[in-house]
Amino acid sequence: MPLKSKPAGRLISFEGSEGSGKSTQISLLAAHLQKLGKEVITTREPGGTEIGEQIRNIIVHNSKGDEMCPETELLLFTAARAQVVREVIVPALIAGKFVLSDRYLDSSTVYQGIARNLAADPVAQINRFAVGNVMPDITVIIDVPTEVSIARLKQRVTDLPDRMERENIDFYNKVREGYLLLAKNMTDRVILVDGTKPIAQVAKAIWEHVQLRLGL
Amino acid sequence: MPLKSKPAGRLISFEGSEGSGKSTQISLLAAHLQKLGKEVITTREPGGTEIGEQIRNIIVHNSKGDEMCPETELLLFTAARAQVVREVIVPALIAGKFVLSDRYLDSSTVYQGIARNLAADPVAQINRFAVGNVMPDITVIIDVPTEVSIARLKQRVTDLPDRMERENIDFYNKVREGYLLLAKNMTDRVILVDGTKPIAQVAKAIWEHVQLRLGL
Repeated sequence: MPLKSKPAGRLISFEGSEGSGKSTQISLLAAHLQKLGKEVITTREPGGTEIGEQIRNIIVHNSKGDEMCPETELLLFTAARAQVVREVIVPALIAGKFVLSDRYLDSSTVYQGIARNLAADPVAQINRFAVGNVMPDITVIIDVPTEVSIARLKQRVTDLPDRMERENIDFYNKVREGYLLLAKNMTDRVILVDGTKPIAQVAKAIWEHVQLRLGL
Repeated sequence: MPLKSKPAGRLISFEGSEGSGKSTQISLLAAHLQKLGKEVITTREPGGTEIGEQIRNIIVHNSKGDEMCPETELLLFTAARAQVVREVIVPALIAGKFVLSDRYLDSSTVYQGIARNLAADPVAQINRFAVGNVMPDITVIIDVPTEVSIARLKQRVTDLPDRMERENIDFYNKVREGYLLLAKNMTDRVILVDGTKPIAQVAKAIWEHVQLRLGL
């Protein structure tokens, strides 16, 4: 297993639909932690390593998106995850840093498992294989209704995940329901925040949870 | 599962160390089957589809091979496999074709499992997830001693798997031992042939097995 004992650092993952505001909130939390003198790194999935970015390219820019089967998609996402865990996250946690990850294993549970209907058991097994024992200390799920998510997506001009964008509304609804289910079932690790609120208010809600749970 | 009932076609996978003569023997068996009026397609792993070839590029030409962790390697190989199974192999089997595959799930069992020391259970689980119920009718393992494998590799001029080539002799010895173990444990599906024999003699041994087992 990649971690032999509880490391000094902390891993916080951010989850939610596209357009939920994850990257904005990651930046704000990183800035807040840095103001307290903490060392912070941020990673994104899929990607976060040279190999992971190559995998990201296959997933995101695959011009014939319909041809990638969900099994392949899951294995590619978890391949990128296995690499970022061992190359980036574990060394950072051992060095006592805060790691803020834009998506982590719950994205596979929800996107490939729930929304693409892969069986839950193999998705969980493969997730576990990819992350070893490196579980998030906290997972922030930012919830927005599907119509908000899609409206925000349409406003973005660059670097949109082409494949994801073409998915239909049913798919996004399943993603949202999947995240809400996770939040309900995993209260020890997951916090759910309302992403339709003003940015500063969302940031405050996240910060209060993080502070409380990690005793900062 | 990708196959609902036993298809008309047959899947024959070829396994063995680099330089064991798999691609030569695949060509000869394909020609033999075609002479009998059979429809034959050949695929290679990783690869065999557009997505798989992109994955192959990451694995084979990754310039900093030491940085790819074995977990990532396994997930990338099985991602390519999941795609070729569903996009190429299953439709061909349903259409009654012979599919000759240059490597299949046993390569992961041996290379990532045995030679890279990943635990056997998750490797088997992930393999099963990738192939569904599409198991080979016959697996031909071509055995050559490690020194023969390396000597043949050095004679090749192009398209060598860079990463694999840099592995050491211990690694190749483990691969060989892994294949010999599979041949011993899976006699219902695997046939073992001596790849140091002349090409025509190896081809004859393979043909006799295939003919007998498939009743051709």
